[in-house]
Amino acid sequence: MNAEFVNPFIGGLLNVLETMAQTTLTPGKPKKKSDDVAHGDVSGLIGMVGPNVKGSMSITFDEGLILSIMQNMLGEASSEIDAEVADMVGEITNMICGNAKRDLAEKGYEFGMATPVVVSGKQHSISHQVDGPKIILPFNHDLGKAYLEICFDK
Amino acid sequence: MNAEFVNPFIGGLLNVLETMAQTTLTPGKPKKKSDDVAHGDVSGLIGMVGPNVKGSMSITFDEGLILSIMQNMLGEASSEIDAEVADMVGEITNMICGNAKRDLAEKGYEFGMATPVVVSGKQHSISHQVDGPKIILPFNHDLGKAYLEICFDK
Repeated sequence: MNAEFVNPFIGGLLNVLETMAQTTLTPGKPKKKSDDVAHGDVSGLIGMVGPNVKGSMSITFDEGLILSIMQNMLGEASSEIDAEVADMVGEITNMICGNAKRDLAEKGYEFGMATPVVVSGKQHSISHQVDGPKIILPFNHDLGKAYLEICFDK
Repeated sequence: MNAEFVNPFIGGLLNVLETMAQTTLTPGKPKKKSDDVAHGDVSGLIGMVGPNVKGSMSITFDEGLILSIMQNMLGEASSEIDAEVADMVGEITNMICGNAKRDLAEKGYEFGMATPVVVSGKQHSISHQVDGPKIILPFNHDLGKAYLEICFDK
């Protein structure tokens, strides 16, 4: 999986959070080892299916960071990860993947997006089950970390 | 979403666990309220994308139940939900969805399966982000509960 494939997802994440939540994340060093896992308190996951490819994407946030995003994006303060926060994480997941889908379609890679699923729970971990390459991208912010993970089966 | 659509997933779950792990689950009463959520310690999630439909499926297990399934299925005892248990949950997720995919294709409903993602973490909760109907099916066992959730966007 090369940068051409990964960059539209990274761009989608940074763009969505900057324009909709005035939140700037700082990209960290990508992780590629098979025993690297994303950890966090709330995650949005989405499946991707194309004629010749299938895969999955997840975006995981620490609680402090996502509650700040919620406050900035919707003007509503939440003290915990509740149903409204989960809905917003589902929307963010859809927007990141939709952004990448458009960019990649222009480059000749076509896929359809499944519906997102949001997982809430203190310090859960995410394991994408693919034979192909996995890439975990950590992002830093004063209020907590985020992890973007993108996997395809080839 | 009618029984014709849900039953192949239920049949897949019961069949996979009975034949591969000698584990019999007892179906409970389906839940359909929007604030019902599946809770558990490890979940397998998979996206589904067809020409006219998209959706997601999850299977969630309590720790005691999945560790017993691991012991029966692979003859290996694990004392906690580790990478091997996560891999097995990914396989179970693929098998349940693959079973349903075959059955539903025979009835004229076609979809492609994304790659599964496994989430581990004490008592996390799952929220499928779809506009269409959701159905959560609880299953009982002496060693813990399981929840199967199937959602489509129409």
